Amino acid sequence: MSQIIMLDGQNLTIDDIEKVAKFGFKIEIKPDALEKVKKGRQRIFDLVDSDIPVYGFNTGVGWNKDKKVFKDFFNKYNTNLIYSHSLGVEPFCSREEGRAILLTRLNTFLVGCTGVAVEIVEIYKKLLNLDIIPLIPKRGSVGEADITNLSHIGLVLIGEGEVYYNNEIRNSKEVFDEISLEMINLGPKDGLAIVSSNALAAGIGALVLKDIERLLDLADVIYCLSLEGLNGNTSPLDIDLYKTRNYIGQKISLKNVTNLLKNSSIYNADWKKPVQDPLCFRGSVQVNGAVRDAFRYCLELFNIQLNSSEDNPCLLLDENKLLSCSNYESISWVLGFENLGVALSHLSKNSCYRTIKLSNPEFTELPRFLSPKDNVLGYATIQKVFTSLDTEIRHLSNPATADFYSLAGDIEDHANNTPYVVDKLKKIVDNLYYILGIEAMHAVQAIDLRTDCILGSGSKKAYEKIRERVPFYDEDRPIYKDIRTMYDLVKSEKFIHEILNTN
Amino acid sequence: MSQIIMLDGQNLTIDDIEKVAKFGFKIEIKPDALEKVKKGRQRIFDLVDSDIPVYGFNTGVGWNKDKKVFKDFFNKYNTNLIYSHSLGVEPFCSREEGRAILLTRLNTFLVGCTGVAVEIVEIYKKLLNLDIIPLIPKRGSVGEADITNLSHIGLVLIGEGEVYYNNEIRNSKEVFDEISLEMINLGPKDGLAIVSSNALAAGIGALVLKDIERLLDLADVIYCLSLEGLNGNTSPLDIDLYKTRNYIGQKISLKNVTNLLKNSSIYNADWKKPVQDPLCFRGSVQVNGAVRDAFRYCLELFNIQLNSSEDNPCLLLDENKLLSCSNYESISWVLGFENLGVALSHLSKNSCYRTIKLSNPEFTELPRFLSPKDNVLGYATIQKVFTSLDTEIRHLSNPATADFYSLAGDIEDHANNTPYVVDKLKKIVDNLYYILGIEAMHAVQAIDLRTDCILGSGSKKAYEKIRERVPFYDEDRPIYKDIRTMYDLVKSEKFIHEILNTN
Amino acid sequence: MSQIIMLDGQNLTIDDIEKVAKFGFKIEIKPDALEKVKKGRQRIFDLVDSDIPVYGFNTGVGWNKDKKVFKDFFNKYNTNLIYSHSLGVEPFCSREEGRAILLTRLNTFLVGCTGVAVEIVEIYKKLLNLDIIPLIPKRGSVGEADITNLSHIGLVLIGEGEVYYNNEIRNSKEVFDEISLEMINLGPKDGLAIVSSNALAAGIGALVLKDIERLLDLADVIYCLSLEGLNGNTSPLDIDLYKTRNYIGQKISLKNVTNLLKNSSIYNADWKKPVQDPLCFRGSVQVNGAVRDAFRYCLELFNIQLNSSEDNPCLLLDENKLLSCSNYESISWVLGFENLGVALSHLSKNSCYRTIKLSNPEFTELPRFLSPKDNVLGYATIQKVFTSLDTEIRHLSNPATADFYSLAGDIEDHANNTPYVVDKLKKIVDNLYYILGIEAMHAVQAIDLRTDCILGSGSKKAYEKIRERVPFYDEDRPIYKDIRTMYDLVKSEKFIHEILNTN
Amino acid sequence: MSQIIMLDGQNLTIDDIEKVAKFGFKIEIKPDALEKVKKGRQRIFDLVDSDIPVYGFNTGVGWNKDKKVFKDFFNKYNTNLIYSHSLGVEPFCSREEGRAILLTRLNTFLVGCTGVAVEIVEIYKKLLNLDIIPLIPKRGSVGEADITNLSHIGLVLIGEGEVYYNNEIRNSKEVFDEISLEMINLGPKDGLAIVSSNALAAGIGALVLKDIERLLDLADVIYCLSLEGLNGNTSPLDIDLYKTRNYIGQKISLKNVTNLLKNSSIYNADWKKPVQDPLCFRGSVQVNGAVRDAFRYCLELFNIQLNSSEDNPCLLLDENKLLSCSNYESISWVLGFENLGVALSHLSKNSCYRTIKLSNPEFTELPRFLSPKDNVLGYATIQKVFTSLDTEIRHLSNPATADFYSLAGDIEDHANNTPYVVDKLKKIVDNLYYILGIEAMHAVQAIDLRTDCILGSGSKKAYEKIRERVPFYDEDRPIYKDIRTMYDLVKSEKFIHEILNTN
Repeated sequence: MSQIIMLDGQNLTIDDIEKVAKFGFKIEIKPDALEKVKKGRQRIFDLVDSDIPVYGFNTGVGWNKDKKVFKDFFNKYNTNLIYSHSLGVEPFCSREEGRAILLTRLNTFLVGCTGVAVEIVEIYKKLLNLDIIPLIPKRGSVGEADITNLSHIGLVLIGEGEVYYNNEIRNSKEVFDEISLEMINLGPKDGLAIVSSNALAAGIGALVLKDIERLLDLADVIYCLSLEGLNGNTSPLDIDLYKTRNYIGQKISLKNVTNLLKNSSIYNADWKKPVQDPLCFRGSVQVNGAVRDAFRYCLELFNIQLNSSEDNPCLLLDENKLLSCSNYESISWVLGFENLGVALSHLSKNSCYRTIKLSNPEFTELPRFLSPKDNVLGYATIQKVFTSLDTEIRHLSNPATADFYSLAGDIEDHANNTPYVVDKLKKIVDNLYYILGIEAMHAVQAIDLRTDCILGSGSKKAYEKIRERVPFYDEDRPIYKDIRTMYDLVKSEKFIHEILNTN
Repeated sequence: MSQIIMLDGQNLTIDDIEKVAKFGFKIEIKPDALEKVKKGRQRIFDLVDSDIPVYGFNTGVGWNKDKKVFKDFFNKYNTNLIYSHSLGVEPFCSREEGRAILLTRLNTFLVGCTGVAVEIVEIYKKLLNLDIIPLIPKRGSVGEADITNLSHIGLVLIGEGEVYYNNEIRNSKEVFDEISLEMINLGPKDGLAIVSSNALAAGIGALVLKDIERLLDLADVIYCLSLEGLNGNTSPLDIDLYKTRNYIGQKISLKNVTNLLKNSSIYNADWKKPVQDPLCFRGSVQVNGAVRDAFRYCLELFNIQLNSSEDNPCLLLDENKLLSCSNYESISWVLGFENLGVALSHLSKNSCYRTIKLSNPEFTELPRFLSPKDNVLGYATIQKVFTSLDTEIRHLSNPATADFYSLAGDIEDHANNTPYVVDKLKKIVDNLYYILGIEAMHAVQAIDLRTDCILGSGSKKAYEKIRERVPFYDEDRPIYKDIRTMYDLVKSEKFIHEILNTN
Repeated sequence: MSQIIMLDGQNLTIDDIEKVAKFGFKIEIKPDALEKVKKGRQRIFDLVDSDIPVYGFNTGVGWNKDKKVFKDFFNKYNTNLIYSHSLGVEPFCSREEGRAILLTRLNTFLVGCTGVAVEIVEIYKKLLNLDIIPLIPKRGSVGEADITNLSHIGLVLIGEGEVYYNNEIRNSKEVFDEISLEMINLGPKDGLAIVSSNALAAGIGALVLKDIERLLDLADVIYCLSLEGLNGNTSPLDIDLYKTRNYIGQKISLKNVTNLLKNSSIYNADWKKPVQDPLCFRGSVQVNGAVRDAFRYCLELFNIQLNSSEDNPCLLLDENKLLSCSNYESISWVLGFENLGVALSHLSKNSCYRTIKLSNPEFTELPRFLSPKDNVLGYATIQKVFTSLDTEIRHLSNPATADFYSLAGDIEDHANNTPYVVDKLKKIVDNLYYILGIEAMHAVQAIDLRTDCILGSGSKKAYEKIRERVPFYDEDRPIYKDIRTMYDLVKSEKFIHEILNTN
Repeated sequence: MSQIIMLDGQNLTIDDIEKVAKFGFKIEIKPDALEKVKKGRQRIFDLVDSDIPVYGFNTGVGWNKDKKVFKDFFNKYNTNLIYSHSLGVEPFCSREEGRAILLTRLNTFLVGCTGVAVEIVEIYKKLLNLDIIPLIPKRGSVGEADITNLSHIGLVLIGEGEVYYNNEIRNSKEVFDEISLEMINLGPKDGLAIVSSNALAAGIGALVLKDIERLLDLADVIYCLSLEGLNGNTSPLDIDLYKTRNYIGQKISLKNVTNLLKNSSIYNADWKKPVQDPLCFRGSVQVNGAVRDAFRYCLELFNIQLNSSEDNPCLLLDENKLLSCSNYESISWVLGFENLGVALSHLSKNSCYRTIKLSNPEFTELPRFLSPKDNVLGYATIQKVFTSLDTEIRHLSNPATADFYSLAGDIEDHANNTPYVVDKLKKIVDNLYYILGIEAMHAVQAIDLRTDCILGSGSKKAYEKIRERVPFYDEDRPIYKDIRTMYDLVKSEKFIHEILNTN
């Protein structure tokens, strides 16, 4: 089976990025996209011979925009640009993140507005397909293009950087020599072409969005288990309620939940149930749905980022212009990322409260802390764990995007802190794997204690997968191991995939 | 010309709400919408005779949901409900806000899921058309329905509240008696019908959104003036740049700007201009556009709120059900409001930096602080003013929506703090009138000092309207008066309306 | 009884400021302090004849520091300085706040480092003693001296400002003429002398600190009532526990509580009490004590502010120097104010949780929501009120002090946002009056329902004062009136004073 | 030279903790302190035979406090307690942090209020002296005692945990067996004794405070270098200015700076200097001093934590009581940690602005970006690096201490999130090493370009140590290596120590 993603600068998706970054898909470039790159390069050479000052091309960058760069010095100038922009601060991106970053920038080269050397485009492709991945530091960018970090790719291309290769971290010159890959001789505008992109944040961000997409399904699944663990009320799941309230996100979650709970005994009439459950149960579809709405808003804007020019100056081939502009501006989708953090902080609280309820006999009529017998302490102290992780989420949900300085002689007076915003969101998602994993532990324990549940067709599948890994809590044991197991389980791409596809 | 808004529970917009709240439009109710209300009421009476426990109808509310309410005590019970929910904390809503709140709730009655008494629906209409507006405190709600505040409308209906009437604040019984309006005798579910709604936050929120809609145009206008004041670069306004970057918001702002700058000398080639301007100028269309994208996301979700059931329990007439549910859940659009706060904090910083640049000879080649002559101090210290207001905006942009308690015997363990979130956004908008107003003062002063500008057809109109009110700063004078004048001017609905409609 | 505060620039306290601002105390100036002012003024005149450039004296201010000011233009220049600094944004300070501000600046004049005209010192005194109080806008300062606001005092002195006088707001020239007070003719350095001070923030801040000092006692009192309402455990109040934990704040609160609970039946052995109470009760002395520690830290630093030079340049009489410096820097005590906000957010949560517990039969063995009988809804929905006010406190506790711009040609690149930080703290305190007032309502209701309490000698007094104003909740009634009554009661300086002084 | 810290529960300092944690000091226990532990243990055994219910001793913990624990089951119960509390979430503490934690808890055992088995006290000592250090996860605690983490020490003691030993991570049973160390048989109250302590946060916190103590000196040193690099004004360093402003912190920094700059040419009269420098220079002593004041407040409260009982219930030997209490309450000093975060965010901004100024010819009269010659790009883009790290600091300075849940059946309704607050502060400090290191790079580059500086006796030493590691920037080179070098240098304990001790 051929697993190839075809790039053309117009259709890259977060799915594609995940496939390439995590699952080893190879890439190819559409011929006409490459043709455009070539034409763009020619235009650059034509400009070299003209005299018009163009920012970052035959002038300096930033405050140095008033300085001229002469033709003979293009290589020296562009190398110096890479050097003086190689400023990244640890930690380093993982190999997978590095792959996502390379791919993301490669695709926007193909939009055709960069004027980059064709060799550079091709080496990005080769690095990906040969799995030679630059070691890129994560920090040090204000997110108005990640120039301080992507420069480290430049170092790799000229033989002075480091790469992940065959499970080692090695000097790029060594590796290039070993496999006879030629290093790059930087020409006009190549320095800017390499650094002037948001690919650090966008590449990592794509992986985070893909994780959130799955997390949203995960949250629906675990809510179903908890509802069955609680023996809760299904009246808020009545489809007729949603007719007038046209929130798309809610409708998706409702459909999910309805599928997962198919044939569950939870729908049976039971006069002992209270008139209504706590809000954390009653409003789960609403909360999960609202995060879905926030996700859709973000993804829509992010997809534009993935498939449009990031270049300043921007080469417009058809119009034969090289224009100073703001194509590096990431604000639209950065707002979407910040917003998702706040949205997920609600989802997190919802999960925490459901978990707390599952431990409370007043709501479950099961033993306190889901303890299976009298001398077992059970899930008592664990409440501190998931709520403390939620506190971290609450903190991470504070915005950081608008806290920037005026830099470079007061010329660079806007920024978005994009990589930091993406990193915050990634940490939120990571904490949620723990929080939802612990909720799931509670839910299946409650289900086990409640001997008469007939689970829904989807939730049953989830129950089984969990119980394969974490057995019934019958005696006290060091719980941290179960927590870690659940974290790994719910984080895996497979878990949610298999549950949803068996319905 | 008849100025009437016709209500049917399905088509209310923020425009309508502004028209009724601020401009005295009257309302009517579509007959078939009223018919639905009547049928719903009948269904409630049918239920009274049945024995099925329904939350808040024949049971208590909140933790008291396990207590029964008997038929004979409906009036007593519903009156007590109003009393014990009358908990609002000052300050009070303005008359205009009160009008928006009444209208907002009235329209969701017409969705037909409340089962409220027809008399109540009709008195809401009368109060609006007679301009007898309940005095409603703003604070004390956690925004999971504004029950602590809307209860004060209930007090008015039973003659124990206070109303704005003919420029006075008076007791409602007195006013009702005076004009022979009958007070309401509360029946089954009427207490909940009155209080169980997000109309406090949604009513005020509608007015805030309408203000933001105008503010977005205002920001475009003032950016144009500033660009002309700076004698800035128009290259980032080249329409071809936006072909590949399909951000809807940016395109709207670009179109606005292009219209406003029509025939401006700013487009003239001028070799003395720097290669590119500071980002605050270069990226204004991007920033304003991103806020537009955030606005669209919010408005889309908010419109659903305005035209769907807020009721718990929710009466489904066609299906003949009275269901416990989460229709009061406002999370989807609250996220949109929080997000707008962060978005506007970027817009605010953008404006502040443009204003700072306009005072700086290095960027303008005009006198420092736009001082017209040597002994005039000019716009020096004023930088502290707009930046301190921006600091407030930064603080207000911190989220508050997910900071809630678990209440009512741990049953009410989710909330959105909707009214507080709306209030934060309202304050952000208010500060922006000052900030943008001060930017405009700088822009017109720069234009005046730069004697050779030919303004765009739209920006010229704006310039003239400003100079009608705030004359050229030729000698030092107490500047706070000009600030206040500009605040009033740019805040007025007329200002932006007249500028945009003359293009 | 003569109620006079004697000023000398060395001993002003927050008590003094409250006495003058709120309780009408008059002031006098120590003769030798005035003597120092006179000598300083002479030194300034000496300098006028020299040629040494001194910031803001014979040079411009801020970025304009490179411009010279000539002798003949001192009046014009200083008047222009007042004009161009008159930039305050509404709302206006209250009369009491205005008094505090005048006094605070007056006292730092007496440190003797300003070189201000003696007439200005004397008119500050007269304005206070005659109760002619400048109308000063609150906003627009970044808190690196409140120059945009204190300039409005300058306007008053030259007859162009507004004042509170005899319950009216009037033009200062009119009032000065009416009582034959001479206006001021500004001389060298007088402009800076008037504006270059943190008196806006410090004056209001002094009143806020004084309120917090009382609030700390109030929190102890209400905790005692709640403990008796709960019939809680006194074991955490055992004095021996505090021997090894030497937190001064805790010891003060413990002593308070021990005095207030003297002779209370709460100390009686009662085997039905649980082993230990919820943390909100068990740790009240710790939480209140921690806020006391935070208060002490803040006050210590604030007292230095009140009695030291705020001047730049700073005149050192003995050393015969006029030095450029950072005496306007308020950072030390601003941190103390921010910290108090976070500290009080804990105190607020503590109170909220105690109140919630008092409504919960599981903890009190009293009726749910302290309802006196079956058909009374009681204190159910009120939980939304105090927790929503706590949510506001949580939001206000986010820091704002370090969010500033680089201004005035990048020379003014540090600020503290002092007035905004003080304002946030003031709002926190105001919300706490509601929160603690509502806790007290619950406590006395619980005490009444618990018929066998013998209250402590201090808590009894508090109980009685509350019940004088808010009667037993025997039937449902509009509760907002009781909330407002409690707010007024606990906010009054008298309430806490009378309780503590009867022990 | 014997390097031993003698413990007695009364005198432990952050210096001691650093010495033991980082520098391998051994510990001994004062005989009379151990005697107290023995007596306490005997008292516990006496209590075992009585029937009085004592929380966590012969009752359950948390909500389970109503459950009885019988004598025969003490071992089983305490083992289960360790199991069910073993809930820590990764990452793990470093070996050094683990040492600090063990020591911190060991010392509070010696206060004598725990009643812990003497064997446990002695094994803590042995583990430290033998350098067998438990692997303790960092996350999962709400900081109302770090019970979810310290339990992992318990696992070690019973042979089921993991330890750092001889540069490996190994199972504790294996290691104990290997060196014939006996495992612990848990008796009454031992479970609580092990877990009920704030030692996780306090141990790590001690190391952080020690780092900050050094950082404060570092900030003074680097300010001196920058002032010399700028050729700045020394007038704000005039000692006479500080006579009336009695801020202890400022006076310490001033003294530091005066010593460091002894004999520097910076004090020479130079008429070309501007009247005054930007605030980031003019107010450095004020800002650094304010952080010192904040540090003193924190340390004072923290020292009490280190030397007092953390136990609940607390055994009072002399009074023969075992009392339920709040000794685990860490709020006082947690506020100090939060406050230090805000304080350091000012220090960070101050450093960033100084660095920006050093790159600006307008302030330095040196080449733009300190570039040594025309084709070298120099320190241009690096501004993004330190300001983005400052943005992280700004975000980390948002408070998290009061964001907690009500847990364990609503009994545990207060928390401080102590470990998270400590972790935030640790990250702030770590970022500051980068920020200050980069400032230092700029300062020495400016000094080199300014050929006529005679450095102060202290700043000269600093200059030399930096230039030993980071040579003059004469040609563009990948700057990230210099950044990392500077980070390592300024972070080392030696760097600052050697500079200050040569004066």
